[in-house]
Amino acid sequence: MRDPVIELTKQLIQRKSISPTDQGCQQLIIDRLTPLGFTFEPMQFGETLNLWAYHGNPDEPTLVFAGHTDVVPAGNENSWVYPPFEPTIDEHGMLYGRGAADMKGGLAAMVCAAENFVKQNPNHKGRVAFLITADEEAAATDGTVKVVEALMARKERVDYCIVGEPSSSKLCGDQIKNGRRGSLTANLVVHGVQGHVAYPHLADNPVHRFAPALAELVATEWDQGNQYFPATTMQVANINGGTGAENVVPGELSVQFNFRYSSELTDDVIRQRVTALLDKYQLRYSLSWRLSGKPFLTPQGTLTDVTAEAIKKFTSLTTELSTSGGTSDGRFIALMGCQIIELGPLNATIHKVNECVSCADLKTLVNIYQRILNNILNRGQVS
Amino acid sequence: MRDPVIELTKQLIQRKSISPTDQGCQQLIIDRLTPLGFTFEPMQFGETLNLWAYHGNPDEPTLVFAGHTDVVPAGNENSWVYPPFEPTIDEHGMLYGRGAADMKGGLAAMVCAAENFVKQNPNHKGRVAFLITADEEAAATDGTVKVVEALMARKERVDYCIVGEPSSSKLCGDQIKNGRRGSLTANLVVHGVQGHVAYPHLADNPVHRFAPALAELVATEWDQGNQYFPATTMQVANINGGTGAENVVPGELSVQFNFRYSSELTDDVIRQRVTALLDKYQLRYSLSWRLSGKPFLTPQGTLTDVTAEAIKKFTSLTTELSTSGGTSDGRFIALMGCQIIELGPLNATIHKVNECVSCADLKTLVNIYQRILNNILNRGQVS
Repeated sequence: MRDPVIELTKQLIQRKSISPTDQGCQQLIIDRLTPLGFTFEPMQFGETLNLWAYHGNPDEPTLVFAGHTDVVPAGNENSWVYPPFEPTIDEHGMLYGRGAADMKGGLAAMVCAAENFVKQNPNHKGRVAFLITADEEAAATDGTVKVVEALMARKERVDYCIVGEPSSSKLCGDQIKNGRRGSLTANLVVHGVQGHVAYPHLADNPVHRFAPALAELVATEWDQGNQYFPATTMQVANINGGTGAENVVPGELSVQFNFRYSSELTDDVIRQRVTALLDKYQLRYSLSWRLSGKPFLTPQGTLTDVTAEAIKKFTSLTTELSTSGGTSDGRFIALMGCQIIELGPLNATIHKVNECVSCADLKTLVNIYQRILNNILNRGQVS
Repeated sequence: MRDPVIELTKQLIQRKSISPTDQGCQQLIIDRLTPLGFTFEPMQFGETLNLWAYHGNPDEPTLVFAGHTDVVPAGNENSWVYPPFEPTIDEHGMLYGRGAADMKGGLAAMVCAAENFVKQNPNHKGRVAFLITADEEAAATDGTVKVVEALMARKERVDYCIVGEPSSSKLCGDQIKNGRRGSLTANLVVHGVQGHVAYPHLADNPVHRFAPALAELVATEWDQGNQYFPATTMQVANINGGTGAENVVPGELSVQFNFRYSSELTDDVIRQRVTALLDKYQLRYSLSWRLSGKPFLTPQGTLTDVTAEAIKKFTSLTTELSTSGGTSDGRFIALMGCQIIELGPLNATIHKVNECVSCADLKTLVNIYQRILNNILNRGQVS
């Protein structure tokens, strides 16, 4: 099965690029695109390798393929049916290896699609570009976010973006992400006064103080979502109070809770509502916040329509727009004001042992990506 | 200041009897009481030394002095103004050392009081006895509880008991304990389903499930107390849920809470009420209980009246009956059905660095204990 996308995926999997390392993956892509006349701009931030590459006119409509070469660790390699960095295809046509689905397979498909497109349209309109990082799975501090800052600083044009993350649920192409919810984490410490449980009048139990506020927090309806977003959710991830002794009233209570919020809310509104709620219960507290990403959305339009048409053509599926799930580097690229979607293979095995991807799906993805490219850059010349 | 009670207290402090060891303290007391004709019965359970000793007729009214020779550790000895096991009297007449107040001082005063009484009344009515353990501060499993079981098994007569624990608050004798609240601890685990915070519909957050139940638990009035007991209190001592990661919904929540309860309630009633409350919220949970001690009470009567009179005589104070504070070995002796009080020096420095006791208070306690002994055993012959 000497198909280009399978071969490239295997070559990428062989490079043990545990986040945030690249281990030569980007060079492999550079070698592949060099004969086509791409321009390359490696962008190193800290220890992290990133790559900006493009073909075509920088002043014309630009479609960016975005992805990452780094992978999460393999965990216990003995739990894998095949060694995680020795790509292996089983009798069902499934290609196994760490990163097969997240997202070396999608990355290879995007490269092959661009390769095919440029070969067939050497003088295409517009510009096809790649934004590739090796720091997506880890801290994500020296990766896409820094590249985007650099590109925005020089007013680089980006109109459309496809992130090759594994967006599919049960069948390849059944779902694309046209946005993501925001993610905001609150770190709350409720202050009390430590003491002996036998003398509660000399102590001030922060668990007791916080109890009615917690009940209200978890019962609150933050919004009802909208056409694109499900309702905002809040989840307490961690709660800890007490010395471990059964006869000591804790002096403080730590609570960490996370919001996944829709475009109906802003992080400022959430902060205000939480603070007002806590103040209503007259708590003494310290509160800090971490904003992982604001919500972003590409409403139905050119990119989603073209993508849906391409998926329909090669899979017969009517794809579903979704904003569910975690965050991705799309949140950074969205700041450039482009239309952005995520489209890639099935996500069932990502971050697990025996991660795998269907070879047939990768070939389908090459076709889909290439058709999108064609239909976006050569508008009106759809084959 | 060669006073017998001071000398004996110093000798006891010199013996580094960190709980649950005795280090020869009980032998010191045996040596002291032997010339008076006491009968001794050492009772060893496990590694723990205990002593039962008495003088007088076992069939007649018996007053027991109860106490312990073990002490809590000294902590950082460099933080002490005087070495904790080298008893030292400062210029204000305060005797320093680990156990000075809890409770080698009270123990010495009870021994000296019994010594004086028997010397002056060699043919006294009734019986004076000692129940001494070396396992009060630690697990308390092989100490008083076992001695009481042995004494009850052979129907040993005990009518009155004075525990020489430091009961006084601001002035020696200002407060005696005539009972203690019960102590019952609940260990609750609320079960949920772990998951990703971005997909709460696939998880079941036990913190959210428990929140309204917690609010009701802390808002519940368990009783209003009674003439002798303050209202029952409940305190959450420990609450822990979460993996530490901010994006994981915890799979379970552990909550430990402790009741200090009055004689208006029983541990059975508390268990039933808590279970009913949890069931109302349809939680999936595991719940275990630890009963540290049932409440016990000696209502105002012979022992409290005689004690109050003796305190008034030597201190001019009108003592206060109290059931507040933690538990003591009195909870075990109370099972014998006797009248029991706790009376001893100030508790301000117990379990702390620079533990100390007033030499003058120890001498006053000898007089008070001796007068109680005289007035209980030689009724009507009050001097």
